Amino acid sequence: MGYKIAFIGSGNVASNLAHAMDKAGHTILQIISSREDHAKLLASQFGAYYGTDIAKLDDHADFVIIGVNDEAYYSVLENIPPDISSIVCHSAGPVSMDILSKYAKNYGVLYPLQSLRKEEIINFNSLPLFIEANSLRNLDALSNLADSISNVVKEVSSEEREKYHLAAVFANNFTNLMYTIADEYLQNQSLDFNYLLPIINETANRLKYDKPKNWQTGPAKRGDISIIQKHIDMLDDSQLKTIYKQLSDLIGSR
Amino acid sequence: MGYKIAFIGSGNVASNLAHAMDKAGHTILQIISSREDHAKLLASQFGAYYGTDIAKLDDHADFVIIGVNDEAYYSVLENIPPDISSIVCHSAGPVSMDILSKYAKNYGVLYPLQSLRKEEIINFNSLPLFIEANSLRNLDALSNLADSISNVVKEVSSEEREKYHLAAVFANNFTNLMYTIADEYLQNQSLDFNYLLPIINETANRLKYDKPKNWQTGPAKRGDISIIQKHIDMLDDSQLKTIYKQLSDLIGSR
Repeated sequence: MGYKIAFIGSGNVASNLAHAMDKAGHTILQIISSREDHAKLLASQFGAYYGTDIAKLDDHADFVIIGVNDEAYYSVLENIPPDISSIVCHSAGPVSMDILSKYAKNYGVLYPLQSLRKEEIINFNSLPLFIEANSLRNLDALSNLADSISNVVKEVSSEEREKYHLAAVFANNFTNLMYTIADEYLQNQSLDFNYLLPIINETANRLKYDKPKNWQTGPAKRGDISIIQKHIDMLDDSQLKTIYKQLSDLIGSR
Repeated sequence: MGYKIAFIGSGNVASNLAHAMDKAGHTILQIISSREDHAKLLASQFGAYYGTDIAKLDDHADFVIIGVNDEAYYSVLENIPPDISSIVCHSAGPVSMDILSKYAKNYGVLYPLQSLRKEEIINFNSLPLFIEANSLRNLDALSNLADSISNVVKEVSSEEREKYHLAAVFANNFTNLMYTIADEYLQNQSLDFNYLLPIINETANRLKYDKPKNWQTGPAKRGDISIIQKHIDMLDDSQLKTIYKQLSDLIGSR
């Protein structure tokens, strides 16, 4: 027997969670989104109700899962029907569970620690799902739901989740910035970033074998001051020169 | 018919190249290395001669491939027999081909754009090999050798290779530093870096679909100043606070 699930939001997180839960045998009851066309498209894949009015949330839903941009959370919450009995969950890394306490009796968090996009519906089997709930009973239910779609479910407090989110900014957002800097530099030199893809993948994939610190290589690690200075000279953007120097210093000090 | 190859060096690059060339049907003639035990171990896998004396390089080798640390290049080169007829190649990203001109008539560069380690002998099929040689005849020979082990062989000048190397410092070395910062932060908080591995791999793997700039997400991309400030407050290392702010500024300015 599966749960009945309503979604608020029709973007990257909602789309991926809805597909994973549908596949696991749960019933996608409703998709409610400010973007009616998106809601309609997503709902049509599950024969679900769609709409734009949060006041029409079906109280038969076991879970209401909010998957909207961080900025939209408060306006969504204000519109949740008072006395809703569903377990209302948000799915945001840096948002505390407590913001839900004013709006629902039963609430929790279901946070997929992955960068999701609706254009690619992924397999959740090995995707970390961090869960949190306001009561043991709600945690049990949320745990069952999460276990039905992923093998990597962990109870994580709001405070811990914020710390994971900070770490992910380095490991994901700032890493992607490093890729962007490399790409833009090569493009300016009429060279091809695609030649770097094998080394980029190797750098990421090898982390399963050892800690990143033990994989560190390069001029800064070797203390090769002449190459470091040459690279700084080769960069023509003063912000990049500063970043190159500071990151090299940081590697050298470790 | 294969080439006869001698290696100077027995480390990460030499080990991987020797295995790839052996598999492609070439003859590994000699392994010469300052670390006799390493030379012996590697040579034993191909029935090759091993030794520590560069003066004993076999002039029957079609190629002498130097795979030593950047710092060791000059002492190696000084000991190469004068009048050697083999094509002497180095395999270093940031080292100009011209350093070989004083020591050999025939010379070139064979640079694998990958972070190699001898503990893991990898398949070279899709590994970018950048080649360069001092004559068309030598380039033809080196091109044949490279094509026999990889499908991604490209003629790249010393100047271009240096630029690729600079870009790789961002895409590989500095990226690994971002992983290290995330790992150390989580470890200090008694949290587990392994939960970040799926998002790290996704961040790397999706580059084959679109430019990194188009994948950028996170608080800096959204201009979410309150989260940025919160993260800076959460970091207790002043160097990391500075880096977080500067990298966020850099994302914001793009």
